Amino acid sequence: MSLDTQLTRRLGLRVPILSAPMAGVAGGALAAAVSRAGGLGLIGGGYGDREWLVREIDIAADAGVGVGFITWALARDPDLLTIALERRPRAIFLSFGDFGPYASRAADAGVPLIAQVQTVAGAKAAVSGGAEIIVAQGTEAGGHGGERGTMALVPAVVDAVGDVPVVAAGGIADGRGLAAALMLGAAGVLCGTAFYATRESLAHDNAKGTALRASGDHTVRNRIFDLVRGYDWPEPWMIRTLENRFYRRWVCDPEGLRRDLRRQRQAYLDAQASGDVDTAPVIVGEAIDLVHQVQRAAAVVSRIAKSAEACFNSVRVNSVQAPG
Amino acid sequence: MSLDTQLTRRLGLRVPILSAPMAGVAGGALAAAVSRAGGLGLIGGGYGDREWLVREIDIAADAGVGVGFITWALARDPDLLTIALERRPRAIFLSFGDFGPYASRAADAGVPLIAQVQTVAGAKAAVSGGAEIIVAQGTEAGGHGGERGTMALVPAVVDAVGDVPVVAAGGIADGRGLAAALMLGAAGVLCGTAFYATRESLAHDNAKGTALRASGDHTVRNRIFDLVRGYDWPEPWMIRTLENRFYRRWVCDPEGLRRDLRRQRQAYLDAQASGDVDTAPVIVGEAIDLVHQVQRAAAVVSRIAKSAEACFNSVRVNSVQAPG
Repeated sequence: MSLDTQLTRRLGLRVPILSAPMAGVAGGALAAAVSRAGGLGLIGGGYGDREWLVREIDIAADAGVGVGFITWALARDPDLLTIALERRPRAIFLSFGDFGPYASRAADAGVPLIAQVQTVAGAKAAVSGGAEIIVAQGTEAGGHGGERGTMALVPAVVDAVGDVPVVAAGGIADGRGLAAALMLGAAGVLCGTAFYATRESLAHDNAKGTALRASGDHTVRNRIFDLVRGYDWPEPWMIRTLENRFYRRWVCDPEGLRRDLRRQRQAYLDAQASGDVDTAPVIVGEAIDLVHQVQRAAAVVSRIAKSAEACFNSVRVNSVQAPG
Repeated sequence: MSLDTQLTRRLGLRVPILSAPMAGVAGGALAAAVSRAGGLGLIGGGYGDREWLVREIDIAADAGVGVGFITWALARDPDLLTIALERRPRAIFLSFGDFGPYASRAADAGVPLIAQVQTVAGAKAAVSGGAEIIVAQGTEAGGHGGERGTMALVPAVVDAVGDVPVVAAGGIADGRGLAAALMLGAAGVLCGTAFYATRESLAHDNAKGTALRASGDHTVRNRIFDLVRGYDWPEPWMIRTLENRFYRRWVCDPEGLRRDLRRQRQAYLDAQASGDVDTAPVIVGEAIDLVHQVQRAAAVVSRIAKSAEACFNSVRVNSVQAPG
């Protein structure tokens, strides 16, 4: 295996690939499959459903997974971090908010803290706050994120944080993306979209099928779906989803949605349960163009790693030719 | 030189680096310097100032530059294309609009047509329309552009256009970006921000200085500066600039700006002439974090190429280690 990096050495991985802690999608089965395949699978702690979290950590058993939290949601129930740390995760992953209050608890437990940021300033603050690994998340990412693109954010963060390993996220779903990220100075990648449409993902089958047929041209960063769900996301972060009928209906009329919120929320919850993707969104990023089939998560890890090695081999072999 | 690609072979370049046809910034001196350094320099045809265009093409003389146009602006004075073609440019570059009416004229003149797109659908349409080279421009780019990020757009466009060479743009200002772009399947890169702060750039010295001190965290895609200039940009494209006092004053009050347009436009024009960057914006992209000094354009070309080669060499040397 030729993908040995600062990240694989730090976390004891065979490949520098992390699966994103997607809320409601990345449960114990997905995270465990990624970790068993040599990467680091992250369970999505999401909005703080304690029962769900305990169950999914138990499902992952001894696979060596990490647990990810939405930091501002964790603040409402900080005991969730205790629950996670007691189960000896391979890492704790925090994004979207001030993780200051939690860094020392992870450090005391001897668990590496991975902090995801969306800006260069955020990366500097995260390192000052005690993060041991930085995920630089570009706006291409599905789910919540910021505005900066991966291509320029990653090298700028690498330059800003010194020796701290940087993981690239956003827009990466195949080996070309992993090879590119390593060229940018990253020590690995975190992928969400690539794992959304796996067998182990908890996304509805209709959502996985819709994702496979979609183009990154049709994802949108928006606030509509947080509004209908009643999730109080702080200003800088919006969710990226595929656009759908619900989005088109309300994107220019959030006040109308607010006025009809009770009825629309029930419709949304029903749609989510039944897999009605015209109302409940498919939460994937711009890399969805690069995902063509529902595979097992282990096959996705292997596909990304092997293809990245092939990209590097093309450089090694063609001593006078770039691969392009 | 180990950066031989489909693009360098097609255009007869020594390095797969194009300089963006930045309106009012990329004149004949900048474009000529890039072409003489082995890349392809593009003069920015901008909004149709005929006298300026002829003068700048003359300045570039026999350096082998190309000429870029804003397609919807070219439509108002299509003779500009004739003027450019008569001077035997190395290539014609078209972006932002339907280039259908111009493709055959470039083909008849035997001049390669480079089309810049911002979506996968746009890339497919451009190839159908006769483009010989596609620039996939991610949202990180300074100046006008779309919403998709470079990291996922480039491989998706590569997959969509078959054998047509794809050039990556947006967020690339150093050798890491070039190496990454080639890993994504691109055959080269187009850089704007990296050349904005060169000696040959026509940007005001104050703007160059401000650019060097800026972070990509503080660029914004907006419509405010097109509104004040009276440029009638079509819906999908907005300009990315550094945020400044004028932006902050008007971004949430475009109606107020419209009401005071005559006075504000004069203030804008005065600021542009005097280099007052609080009012006239510095038009750079998210890659500005990676630009640290005002160099000659030839030095920028050389820096990017050499650093990309070093990235590739690190892969060749470390047969069991990725560079990250």
